[in-house]
Amino acid sequence: MSKIRLGIVGLGKIARDQHLGAIEATDGIELTAVASRNAKLEGVHCFHDIDEMLASGVELDAISLCTPPQGRFAQAKAAIEAGKHVMLEKPPGATLSEVFALEKLAKAKGLSLFATWHSRGAAGVEPARALLAKRKIKSASVAWKEDVRHWHPGQAWIWEPGGLGVFDPGINALSIVTRIMPETFHLTHSDLTIPSNRAAPIAANLTFETASGLPIAAEFDWRQTGPQTWDIRVETEEGSVVLTHGGSRLIVDGEAQIVEEDREYRNLYRDFVALVSKGESDTDFSPLVHVADAFMLGRRIETEAFED
Amino acid sequence: MSKIRLGIVGLGKIARDQHLGAIEATDGIELTAVASRNAKLEGVHCFHDIDEMLASGVELDAISLCTPPQGRFAQAKAAIEAGKHVMLEKPPGATLSEVFALEKLAKAKGLSLFATWHSRGAAGVEPARALLAKRKIKSASVAWKEDVRHWHPGQAWIWEPGGLGVFDPGINALSIVTRIMPETFHLTHSDLTIPSNRAAPIAANLTFETASGLPIAAEFDWRQTGPQTWDIRVETEEGSVVLTHGGSRLIVDGEAQIVEEDREYRNLYRDFVALVSKGESDTDFSPLVHVADAFMLGRRIETEAFED
Repeated sequence: MSKIRLGIVGLGKIARDQHLGAIEATDGIELTAVASRNAKLEGVHCFHDIDEMLASGVELDAISLCTPPQGRFAQAKAAIEAGKHVMLEKPPGATLSEVFALEKLAKAKGLSLFATWHSRGAAGVEPARALLAKRKIKSASVAWKEDVRHWHPGQAWIWEPGGLGVFDPGINALSIVTRIMPETFHLTHSDLTIPSNRAAPIAANLTFETASGLPIAAEFDWRQTGPQTWDIRVETEEGSVVLTHGGSRLIVDGEAQIVEEDREYRNLYRDFVALVSKGESDTDFSPLVHVADAFMLGRRIETEAFED
Repeated sequence: MSKIRLGIVGLGKIARDQHLGAIEATDGIELTAVASRNAKLEGVHCFHDIDEMLASGVELDAISLCTPPQGRFAQAKAAIEAGKHVMLEKPPGATLSEVFALEKLAKAKGLSLFATWHSRGAAGVEPARALLAKRKIKSASVAWKEDVRHWHPGQAWIWEPGGLGVFDPGINALSIVTRIMPETFHLTHSDLTIPSNRAAPIAANLTFETASGLPIAAEFDWRQTGPQTWDIRVETEEGSVVLTHGGSRLIVDGEAQIVEEDREYRNLYRDFVALVSKGESDTDFSPLVHVADAFMLGRRIETEAFED
C-alpha cells in the first residue's frame, strides 16, 4: 500500500508540538496539506479551512483534526462524506451524540475513524494492562492533580460550558484507566467543585464500580501547586500496580520497572496507519462517556472564585 | 414458541398502573413471578428481591425491571448472567457507561435486551415518523411544560443528583423526537435553570442541530400551572407536522388526524415478545445520551428556591 496522504486541520500548539513530528517519524503516512485560519506550513498545500482543502483537488486519503472539539463535527462529517479516513484529537467531540453519529457515518462509508487518546501511548500503560489481565484486582484509585495556572494560563474557554474544566486533564486519566482495567466500570457518585465565577469544575471527586462490584476512586484537582500528581494505583491480591507521571512510569509491587520511552503521538499515527490498512476503526468513546456521566450525576459544590 | 415466562422486579406505581395490565393484554407473555421488598401479588410467585427470584428454581425466561434506575445495573446484570432476557423501564440506567455495559453483556450471552421508551407508543408517533420520512424538514421545536407539584408532589429524589429533574419528563419528549426525525442530531447549546436549594434543573433550554444542519429547539419547564403542554412541532416545506398531548394527537398541516388510541405499554410488551422471538435487542439509548450531553454542555442558571 502506498503512503497515506494526510491533511491536517488546525495548526495550533498541539499540531506543532506533537502531530507534525509524529507524522514525520511514522512510516506509511505523509503530510500533504494543512488547513488553518492563521498559519501556513512550508512544503505542503495550505488552505484556509477544510472545505477549501476538500474542494481543492489535492489528493488526500485521510484527515487529522487538531481543532478544538466545538465545531469539529461539521469538519469530520465533511471529511467522511468526501471519502477520507479521519483521526480525532481528544476529546473526540463536544457531545456524545455527535461522535456516535460520526461512528455510524464512517461505518456506512467503509472508512476508518480513529478516536485518539494520546495518554494511552504513555510508556507504562500497555505493560500495566498486560499485567492486570493476569492479576486479581481489589481496587483502583486515581489522583490527577495539577496547577491550572501553570498549564492553562488565561484560557477562558476551558471554564465555559463544554470546556470541561478539570476533566480536560482528567479525561486523560480516564483514557488510561479504561484501557488498563480488564472490566468495564460505571460511575456511582460524583462531586463537582465549581468556582463561583466559572461554569466548569476546578475539582471532581468520583466513585466508580466495576461490573463485578470493585471500587475505583478518582480525584481530579486543578488547584495543586508544587509537585504535580498524575498517578493511577491498582491494588491486586498479588501486590500493587502503580502508574505515575501520567502513565510514563510503572511501579510494580514497589519496584520501578524499566519501560520504553513515551511515544504517545507516534503510537497514534502508527495505529492510524494500521487501522486504515486493515479497513478498521477505533472508536472507544468510553472516557468521554464517563465524563458525561460525571456531569449528569454530579452534585455541584460551589467554591471561591477563580482568577488566573 | 411457548409463552415467555416473565418476572417483574419492582411493584411500585408504574408496575401496577401500566405493566400488569399490559402484560395481561399481550399474547405470548405471562407474568410468573414478582420481586418486591414491600408488596405481594396474588396468583404468582412472590420474592423479596431479584436474587431470591433467580435462585428460587421458578422457571423464568425474562425479567422486566420496574425499579428506579439507581441500582438497576446490578439487577439487570444478575438477570442476564442467569440467562434471562431483560426489559428496562425508562431511563434505562443511572449512567450511560452501565447501559453500554449491559448491551455488550446481553450480546455476548445471546439474550434480548430492550431499553423501552413508553412515549414512543403514543398514538401519533408512528404516523408522524412515517410522514416525516417523506417530507423535507426545515426545523423542529419541542415545548414540554408541566407542573411538577402536580406530577411529582414531595418526590425529593427527582431533585437529587441522578434524579434528572425536568429531564425526567423531558426524556420522554427526546424519545419521541429521536424516533420521528429521519436524521440524528446533537446538542449545540444547553441552559439549565436550577433552584438555589436543589441539585437538578427545574427548566432547560436546549438547541440541537441535525447532521445536515437543521435547527431543533427544546424547552422543558416544570413551573407550568394551568394547561399543560407536551408538544412537538416539525416545520416542513410541505407544511407542519405537530404532535400534542405527549404524542397522542397528530395535527398535519393544521388538520387533526384520526389516530389509534394510545397503547404505550401494550406496544412495549408486544415489541418485547417480538424481540425475544427473533433473538434481537433494541438498545437505542439516544434519549439518555442527549440528556447526558445537556448536563455536560449545560450552563447553570440559578433561580429561586423550590418548595413543594
